[in-house]
Amino acid sequence: MIVTLAPDVPDSTRSSIADAAALIGSSARELTWEDGIRVVAIDGDLHADALRLPGVVASHDKHKNYMLASKLVRERSTVRVGEVEIGSGHPVIMAGPCVVEDRESTVAIAREAQANGAVMLRGGAYKPRTSPYASQGLGEAGLEHLAAARDETGLPVVTEVMEPDQVDLVAHYADMLQVGARNMQNYPLLRRVGQSRRPVLLKRGFSATIEEWLMAAEYILAHGNPNVVLCERGIRAFDPAFRFTLDLNAVPMVKELTHLPVIVDPSHGTGKRSLVAPMSLAAIAAGANGLILEVHPNPDSARCDGSQTITLDTLRTISAQVRALHSVLNGVSVVA
Amino acid sequence: MIVTLAPDVPDSTRSSIADAAALIGSSARELTWEDGIRVVAIDGDLHADALRLPGVVASHDKHKNYMLASKLVRERSTVRVGEVEIGSGHPVIMAGPCVVEDRESTVAIAREAQANGAVMLRGGAYKPRTSPYASQGLGEAGLEHLAAARDETGLPVVTEVMEPDQVDLVAHYADMLQVGARNMQNYPLLRRVGQSRRPVLLKRGFSATIEEWLMAAEYILAHGNPNVVLCERGIRAFDPAFRFTLDLNAVPMVKELTHLPVIVDPSHGTGKRSLVAPMSLAAIAAGANGLILEVHPNPDSARCDGSQTITLDTLRTISAQVRALHSVLNGVSVVA
Amino acid sequence: MIVTLAPDVPDSTRSSIADAAALIGSSARELTWEDGIRVVAIDGDLHADALRLPGVVASHDKHKNYMLASKLVRERSTVRVGEVEIGSGHPVIMAGPCVVEDRESTVAIAREAQANGAVMLRGGAYKPRTSPYASQGLGEAGLEHLAAARDETGLPVVTEVMEPDQVDLVAHYADMLQVGARNMQNYPLLRRVGQSRRPVLLKRGFSATIEEWLMAAEYILAHGNPNVVLCERGIRAFDPAFRFTLDLNAVPMVKELTHLPVIVDPSHGTGKRSLVAPMSLAAIAAGANGLILEVHPNPDSARCDGSQTITLDTLRTISAQVRALHSVLNGVSVVA
Amino acid sequence: MIVTLAPDVPDSTRSSIADAAALIGSSARELTWEDGIRVVAIDGDLHADALRLPGVVASHDKHKNYMLASKLVRERSTVRVGEVEIGSGHPVIMAGPCVVEDRESTVAIAREAQANGAVMLRGGAYKPRTSPYASQGLGEAGLEHLAAARDETGLPVVTEVMEPDQVDLVAHYADMLQVGARNMQNYPLLRRVGQSRRPVLLKRGFSATIEEWLMAAEYILAHGNPNVVLCERGIRAFDPAFRFTLDLNAVPMVKELTHLPVIVDPSHGTGKRSLVAPMSLAAIAAGANGLILEVHPNPDSARCDGSQTITLDTLRTISAQVRALHSVLNGVSVVA
Repeated sequence: MIVTLAPDVPDSTRSSIADAAALIGSSARELTWEDGIRVVAIDGDLHADALRLPGVVASHDKHKNYMLASKLVRERSTVRVGEVEIGSGHPVIMAGPCVVEDRESTVAIAREAQANGAVMLRGGAYKPRTSPYASQGLGEAGLEHLAAARDETGLPVVTEVMEPDQVDLVAHYADMLQVGARNMQNYPLLRRVGQSRRPVLLKRGFSATIEEWLMAAEYILAHGNPNVVLCERGIRAFDPAFRFTLDLNAVPMVKELTHLPVIVDPSHGTGKRSLVAPMSLAAIAAGANGLILEVHPNPDSARCDGSQTITLDTLRTISAQVRALHSVLNGVSVVA
Repeated sequence: MIVTLAPDVPDSTRSSIADAAALIGSSARELTWEDGIRVVAIDGDLHADALRLPGVVASHDKHKNYMLASKLVRERSTVRVGEVEIGSGHPVIMAGPCVVEDRESTVAIAREAQANGAVMLRGGAYKPRTSPYASQGLGEAGLEHLAAARDETGLPVVTEVMEPDQVDLVAHYADMLQVGARNMQNYPLLRRVGQSRRPVLLKRGFSATIEEWLMAAEYILAHGNPNVVLCERGIRAFDPAFRFTLDLNAVPMVKELTHLPVIVDPSHGTGKRSLVAPMSLAAIAAGANGLILEVHPNPDSARCDGSQTITLDTLRTISAQVRALHSVLNGVSVVA
Repeated sequence: MIVTLAPDVPDSTRSSIADAAALIGSSARELTWEDGIRVVAIDGDLHADALRLPGVVASHDKHKNYMLASKLVRERSTVRVGEVEIGSGHPVIMAGPCVVEDRESTVAIAREAQANGAVMLRGGAYKPRTSPYASQGLGEAGLEHLAAARDETGLPVVTEVMEPDQVDLVAHYADMLQVGARNMQNYPLLRRVGQSRRPVLLKRGFSATIEEWLMAAEYILAHGNPNVVLCERGIRAFDPAFRFTLDLNAVPMVKELTHLPVIVDPSHGTGKRSLVAPMSLAAIAAGANGLILEVHPNPDSARCDGSQTITLDTLRTISAQVRALHSVLNGVSVVA
Repeated sequence: MIVTLAPDVPDSTRSSIADAAALIGSSARELTWEDGIRVVAIDGDLHADALRLPGVVASHDKHKNYMLASKLVRERSTVRVGEVEIGSGHPVIMAGPCVVEDRESTVAIAREAQANGAVMLRGGAYKPRTSPYASQGLGEAGLEHLAAARDETGLPVVTEVMEPDQVDLVAHYADMLQVGARNMQNYPLLRRVGQSRRPVLLKRGFSATIEEWLMAAEYILAHGNPNVVLCERGIRAFDPAFRFTLDLNAVPMVKELTHLPVIVDPSHGTGKRSLVAPMSLAAIAAGANGLILEVHPNPDSARCDGSQTITLDTLRTISAQVRALHSVLNGVSVVA
């Protein structure tokens, strides 16, 4: 059950609802939106009396596996990261290197990414690597370089956090916390980023169903953080010609099921440089709220993922086409 | 090996090449393009003498699993169906009912589809049905209704052919032969439509790799029919929320590997009406040369596949958006 | 609805049931078992009067997508191919080369296969090949070699039939008709082998669900042929380390859902010689009624599929272990 | 490169090798086996001088993505958990409830599992749950109940650990640490269990390739823990009739590639009670070193996963059949 509370709800109502939830063996998970409205998720149905308390605005007793992520709560939410708003109006382009290499190159790439249309900077300081012998990233030094690049350019930074104990540290430097595909069902990590107020970019696990993905988002929301952006990044399919199969069907599907913004990562999602530009445009045409792109001045010499990294020229073209495409599509509406 | 012959190649050269192929235990598969140029595929390398014969324009000795379908032959091919050209310029929209119900409704839908942007008519006369108890289509009567609708509207007709013995009959009525996903590796059927000169719409099997799909196209080309259009229609993946997973990555990928035009079927590819419009736009943004759409005046009363069939209003909106999107994207080019 | 008729049912009852089916817009699909009992499948429910006619033994009004293949009809069916009975008692081992090469080698392999435990001979005369340039098999000459090998050894022959027009020819030479994985949803072919009385080996399509597979079997049964054996041969999954993923879960699953015997093809199902022996044993332990194995005196020089073909020594070991394993498991029963 | 060191290797050799590794920009990952032999993995090739130092027994310069897990190191390893040895001789049966419910029932199930053939106790104290509203397990209290059951029965306990910070606590109570499928690529967790000396049960991620799985094992080995047992538990495939698809092909495949023992979880791997017994036998026939089974006196009232949980009667039958099957198979050997 979902209960909506007014910004000026009395504390007595909040504690009565918590008591009523406890009575049915559940707990009341409260989420506060930016506008002060609170939504409480309870796994079960409260006694009707609780719903008549002062400050209760509405309630839905339709159960879903995800409540706070569902359209029952709101039609669309937007997530603000620094000055950037994700989920309203123009698609947001995040770009940067796969892995942070050093301060100088990070600042340089950030400047060039910005000049070519990016409004956020991405880059890995902690890297989940399939091999224990591969470089695991620069760690805190990498975070410092990203922060330096943000300070130089104003671009908010998104970077991956891999374990609960890293959340505070990463949140200290970064503007948005990325939960990677391999960690989509790392529940201790989801709980911990849910307790943070930093916006979270939640990548879809590469064999996660849409429902599992939304339930992972629900973990973050149910622990108090309303600032969740979903990111489709390719699923596992059967053709060895593709490293991953970018699943754009997920974009309109999650827009039907949830109010959360969704962006697309065609770099990891295809694993192939020549597919990044066409699939970027396709993602926006499918309704995505933005893109996250691996970019490097010289992709073939990038320290990781070179085969899926685009040049700054390609970034500029994509940015221009995304703008054009978004404008033209917003002049004509689709009726299903 | 691929050998290109001039339109005025002497017959003696053609028979010498056939002999040289036989000498290496192979056969010479000759394909004649509309411009009179012939391309010969030989599974092996001919003696150098054969390549110096009069009328031999060029040769490539790089082997691939598909030769005639590859970019070694040409950069782009176009396929003409009646007055419609697929693969050049504007995206082509084919629309119509899942299954032909009767003459009157078929003509009516054709008229409305045309009024709302379709330039070709689709519809099933022979239906591959998972259940032996489901209606298998009207057969020849259905072909007659489609031909009647073409005569009324001028829209060329594409319809499915399910077995080798049906090819002549279907080719008598239809302008384009569809090979369905379940028959993508029905080699006797591929051979038979290869011997026809009717254009062929070759749907991708729902668990076919890109390479298997192009090799299926190669069967048709190697039997003499250059008029092949590929159609992506969704693959099998793991999420039960989707009937199929439309794989738009296939669009830019086959454009890298082959000269053949490629269109997309978002109706079967998603199995869900609300996803058809956004995935149609995404397909065009990814570079598809057209769409094939299931449309019905009243989808919920359609005799089959209602859940994935769109209304004529949606068709009109998609047509308008596809036009707008294609125009704007063709003003700005993408560099990989 | 399924209606069971006694062996001595009056013709008047049969025609009344056909009429009653026509009245509800359906047709009566009649299947005669070896014991003379007839089962009629009707897609809908007959009027109660029809069920009181003389000779009607029983009826079930529970609808399924597959009726004649379901447990509603019988608990277990067996299929006799020559002297071999599939589905009762001992597991049946079919073995032979991927493709028939010539008469002499075919007879020789048949003798050696028999000496090493095989009770049926497999071998391809018509081969579905992914490439149009690959050898498509010897055709009728291959069938003759197989028949010669049967005449020498007494081993019944199973071989693939690829199109409706080939059914009579293949049935003339072979004892069992194989419908290959790529043709599992080739409905004209299924209808045609259903009209034959030759036993049919129906391979599972490599991305077919269990339900689609049973509905393909239903096509054969509904056209009058009760002699269907299912064959699991590997599905498409995501790991490029495996050519296919043998899905043994299918074995106990289809045994729950259908009365039809099921065998397993670990050669195609794994694509890897070293996995054939352990997966053969696993198949029998999972409850399979037999195995179909690619065997060759010298696998590395086999004309096709050498990498998944076992030696005759391995065949002997598998045969011995299968016997031992079957005996020991039949001493102890499993309760779910 | 892998370097093998004698038990009495001088410390000077160990530090010289570490220095030589540093020289080529790598680190020396040392693993000590129970017999005192040390194996050092270096991502690169040491100078030949280093390989002539006293105490160096052997070296392999063949690189693989997994070195310590590969057959280059040894043919077979065994892992001892309490008195139980996994990987040698008789298959090991681990059984217990999905989730620990209370002390009394845990002790009771342990006793009954033991009486019916189990030699280890499984049970969840920390549960990874798809929904944030589902019970997340009893936590430390659950660990205490498991330890109590071990004290009563002598059965060593295996239970899941979900985050790095939990490793010490879980290792305090449990005999074996389970890394769940969703955490197979949780690298901070793998590192941490690698620093522990407790045996680790590493479940395969449900869309992990064999290579990714072995590289996850390599993380644990490279951090110093040689006691790794692999566990196949089902992959994601396309048929909605199956919750997961148990991939028994993985069993002989990993036995070719690694020395590590491998067991199978047919409860999660199928998600369906009636498939657990046949797939248990199939797993052993395929060569698995053991099984892990969810068992409950009354599966339909179990607090979680009831639909895949077997009764104690079924456990007894499986145990008996596994014993019989293992004996008979070990009398006859398979040659590939």
